[in-house]
Amino acid sequence: MKNIEHIRHSFAHLLAAAVLDLYPNTKPTIGPATENGFYYDFEFENPISEKDLKEIQKRMKKILNKWENVSGKEVTEEEARNLFKENPYKLELIDEIVSDGDLVTLYTWGDFTDLCKGGHAESSKDMNPDAFKLTKLAGVYWRGDENNPQLTRVYGLAFETKEELEEYEKMLEEAEKRDHRKIGKEMDLFTFSNLVGSGLPMFTPKGMAMRDAIEKKIMDIQEKYGFKKVWIPHITKPELYKTSGHWDKFGEELFKLKGKESEFVMKPMNCPHHTQIYASTPKSYKDLPVRYVETTTCYRDEQTGELLGLSRVRSLTQDDGHVFCTEDQIKEEIKNIIDVIKEFYSTLGMFNNYRVALSVRDPNNKEKYLGDDTVWNLSEKVLEEIANEEKLNFEIMEGEAAFYGPKLDFMFRDSIGREWQLATAQLDFNMPKRFSLEYTDSSGEKKTPVMIHRAVAGSLERFLSVIIEHFAGEFPFWLAPVQIKVLPIGEKHIDYAKEVEKKLRSYRVELDDSDDNFGKKVRKAKVEKIPYFIVIGDEEVKHEKITLESRDGNKEELTIENLLDKLEEEK
Amino acid sequence: MKNIEHIRHSFAHLLAAAVLDLYPNTKPTIGPATENGFYYDFEFENPISEKDLKEIQKRMKKILNKWENVSGKEVTEEEARNLFKENPYKLELIDEIVSDGDLVTLYTWGDFTDLCKGGHAESSKDMNPDAFKLTKLAGVYWRGDENNPQLTRVYGLAFETKEELEEYEKMLEEAEKRDHRKIGKEMDLFTFSNLVGSGLPMFTPKGMAMRDAIEKKIMDIQEKYGFKKVWIPHITKPELYKTSGHWDKFGEELFKLKGKESEFVMKPMNCPHHTQIYASTPKSYKDLPVRYVETTTCYRDEQTGELLGLSRVRSLTQDDGHVFCTEDQIKEEIKNIIDVIKEFYSTLGMFNNYRVALSVRDPNNKEKYLGDDTVWNLSEKVLEEIANEEKLNFEIMEGEAAFYGPKLDFMFRDSIGREWQLATAQLDFNMPKRFSLEYTDSSGEKKTPVMIHRAVAGSLERFLSVIIEHFAGEFPFWLAPVQIKVLPIGEKHIDYAKEVEKKLRSYRVELDDSDDNFGKKVRKAKVEKIPYFIVIGDEEVKHEKITLESRDGNKEELTIENLLDKLEEEK
Repeated sequence: MKNIEHIRHSFAHLLAAAVLDLYPNTKPTIGPATENGFYYDFEFENPISEKDLKEIQKRMKKILNKWENVSGKEVTEEEARNLFKENPYKLELIDEIVSDGDLVTLYTWGDFTDLCKGGHAESSKDMNPDAFKLTKLAGVYWRGDENNPQLTRVYGLAFETKEELEEYEKMLEEAEKRDHRKIGKEMDLFTFSNLVGSGLPMFTPKGMAMRDAIEKKIMDIQEKYGFKKVWIPHITKPELYKTSGHWDKFGEELFKLKGKESEFVMKPMNCPHHTQIYASTPKSYKDLPVRYVETTTCYRDEQTGELLGLSRVRSLTQDDGHVFCTEDQIKEEIKNIIDVIKEFYSTLGMFNNYRVALSVRDPNNKEKYLGDDTVWNLSEKVLEEIANEEKLNFEIMEGEAAFYGPKLDFMFRDSIGREWQLATAQLDFNMPKRFSLEYTDSSGEKKTPVMIHRAVAGSLERFLSVIIEHFAGEFPFWLAPVQIKVLPIGEKHIDYAKEVEKKLRSYRVELDDSDDNFGKKVRKAKVEKIPYFIVIGDEEVKHEKITLESRDGNKEELTIENLLDKLEEEK
Repeated sequence: MKNIEHIRHSFAHLLAAAVLDLYPNTKPTIGPATENGFYYDFEFENPISEKDLKEIQKRMKKILNKWENVSGKEVTEEEARNLFKENPYKLELIDEIVSDGDLVTLYTWGDFTDLCKGGHAESSKDMNPDAFKLTKLAGVYWRGDENNPQLTRVYGLAFETKEELEEYEKMLEEAEKRDHRKIGKEMDLFTFSNLVGSGLPMFTPKGMAMRDAIEKKIMDIQEKYGFKKVWIPHITKPELYKTSGHWDKFGEELFKLKGKESEFVMKPMNCPHHTQIYASTPKSYKDLPVRYVETTTCYRDEQTGELLGLSRVRSLTQDDGHVFCTEDQIKEEIKNIIDVIKEFYSTLGMFNNYRVALSVRDPNNKEKYLGDDTVWNLSEKVLEEIANEEKLNFEIMEGEAAFYGPKLDFMFRDSIGREWQLATAQLDFNMPKRFSLEYTDSSGEKKTPVMIHRAVAGSLERFLSVIIEHFAGEFPFWLAPVQIKVLPIGEKHIDYAKEVEKKLRSYRVELDDSDDNFGKKVRKAKVEKIPYFIVIGDEEVKHEKITLESRDGNKEELTIENLLDKLEEEK
């Protein structure tokens, strides 16, 4: 099997070769493979523009013709220094390689030699000249540090086949059309304000209706499994995180609050607060499992440059939850959580395209993890048993467990093929101990409960960005910000239309009694991507019926009673 | 009519007279009337204890016998200084009176003369010796400043009649029994943690169920009136409050956040954020009124010493809302808000014991207020018309309006006679201008909308403290944290009890399948103040019925279907 990452890496070399051919005074720096292609960072003598990419790409193809196989060799520090004596970036890299005690290696394709650790296409025949493309330029700093010189990054895409490249480009184009920031504005779902600040979205009534619908859907499912809502404040004394251990790890990422008398921090997660609700009354084995859930906003001090619409925000509202249980209950509790995740994503039609990462310990590095072997072995085995019993599409990922326990991460593929990690269930043998949580077992002995962290949608903001793009705004009935629009054909139909609208008030219904002509009303409802619109004309008034048209073009005549029954089913 | 405040003030003098009689070297400082009595702050030569209050009270009665009428006279600064030359506190007060350019006056009852501005009982006959009582001591600082000497405050109650005093004492006793902190703990509704901090309650599943029930009840009512939920973050850049004007007024009270790149503040109110949602799209007169509501937590940097259970917290969750409308719409919108308030408090059975303060401008100080005469006159008139039309129990309070507009404040009396200001509707002609909010009127002209601030429950935390004490934990069915408990008499009834419990899952239902005997189960359900419990025994299993017992002792046999219908009505 061809190694696509290696192929992409070789394309980065090809790019550098072409650039040096065209602009001999350029200083190449580094050029790795990326998720869908490659890039290379250069110091150009004179700035280039995106217009020049065509020429570079042409030269790449020409050079590729002459390439056959790559050859690598180990050289002395001196040889390398001599080769790159004009290039301070490469010299800096050589310094690092040497001080790390690594070997200095060079790789050569055709006439082009680069300082490189290897990992290349086996032959230039694997580098399909029709399956790569240079895409854009970006200004970056050497090593990402703004005190360093500015470089020009040239990006490219590379795949095994032309078809794959075209498919990917089509996906990008489609993603741009579906951009949640664009649709969010068109459908009036959320807004930002310069006075409030970036990364802090505000939700308009329509966007809030969607947040509520998601929260309610998850909560309704969870209620059946015995989850109970709790409430915690958004701030805490630092002592909470000093006890949990987050202070040492994330102290710098926390928003700190200066009060008149005391200092507080804004919560970036909810687990430590939930331990305090658990600890508020003594617990016996009969009280377990205890299952707390809550939809609550956390704050993280993200950098302005990293913020993006709803995908990356400073205020993230989590559908968070924690189960406290005995070791014997782990299996049933994890199953419960999976059932909730399954049911929710099935409602969205997304459970047919997912995979699960079952992250376990690195068996060769057990000392990196907290908790004893027995519990780890038991719970890893339990997670695998469950994954098999529930017939999950899963893969075991060694070494990917959290230091406090193994976990299941759910990745869902959206309608244009992108994968998103959304839901999770994580075992935790650490935090209950740090907070000295207890329960009394049946023999009267004090025991430490196990904690399970779980999220269904993850952050509501990020989840919304994903499903807005997944559905391109054409939301299922239960989720649509406006579910039904009532359209009277003429003025004389308005009274009956109002009656109909009134009977539908338990849904998100709008009446279009504007002066627009009927054609315009229909067009508007379609642009707004409303799942159903109801037409009221002479016939409907006369027979006390309605005509229901769906977004995808279906049409049926119904009595109000039939309509209510139909909608109830889709709720 | 007797002026009770004057009588209470005279009792403070009587207290000072008795204290000086018993402890001649005491230095009296100040002694005002309070809401239900009076106090006087003294510097005692040797500390006294609460045991001594009895003796002082006896002496007060003895002295009162000799008092007839009060006489006041104006004196020179020198005369006053001479009289109080041994008392640095009184000398400081004289300094102040003089530097303020006020007259120095003395008031004498019997042998006792005090520095005093007047306001006394007309005769000692109005001072009922059986209607007052010394209650407690407290350590305070002179002028409330901890750098000053410490004084001893002696508190007393005083009423016109003995009956009133007794009634008030009974109320205090009852209030103590109903203390929401005590009931909250017994019923496991909320908790505090030293690690999280004081003034930051966390709600356990039962308390959260109550929060949710209240929020849902208010929201269900509001939905009928076209209010729409929105969502805002809990933080903002300071610019928002600089624009609204809150920065200058409350800058010091705000929790400030230091981020890596920017500064933020925690929101202490929601109106400025809501203006930004309004401003996010252009509005025409056809879009108005716009009605935003939301249940969201604000943070205020209260001093630790002022915090009290849920009544006074640092995290207050408001059921806040704002209407943006034209001047013509003010009347209908205020009526809408009153209807929501009426319906909600009627549900609680509290709308039969309320009063409304209609706060208008001080007609002699119009320059203190923002907005022109026409709008003020119109809106004060409108508020009064509405108050009359809605037959509100209201009183016009001149000079009590906010600087930005007139308002209606709703005060409710609880079951033990205390009054709480809870709901409000406030007109605001100021904020929309500061944020340059606009709408286009029917002639295409830009106009500024009027803003109405409204709260139904106010802060959920404070509201909960009020209704926990109002109901003494015996909540109506819709609000009770646990609504129904299913009690199988013996082990053989558990299966059917489980079936029953399952059918009631849309309510907050618990099953007591413990090993406790039936009597204990019933006692437990009663202690937990659960509105209904369901008894399952042989008869019930045999006839597939249930026996429903209510908290207040009613008992009836029902089929499950009858039961569901009955509960649906009380929902």
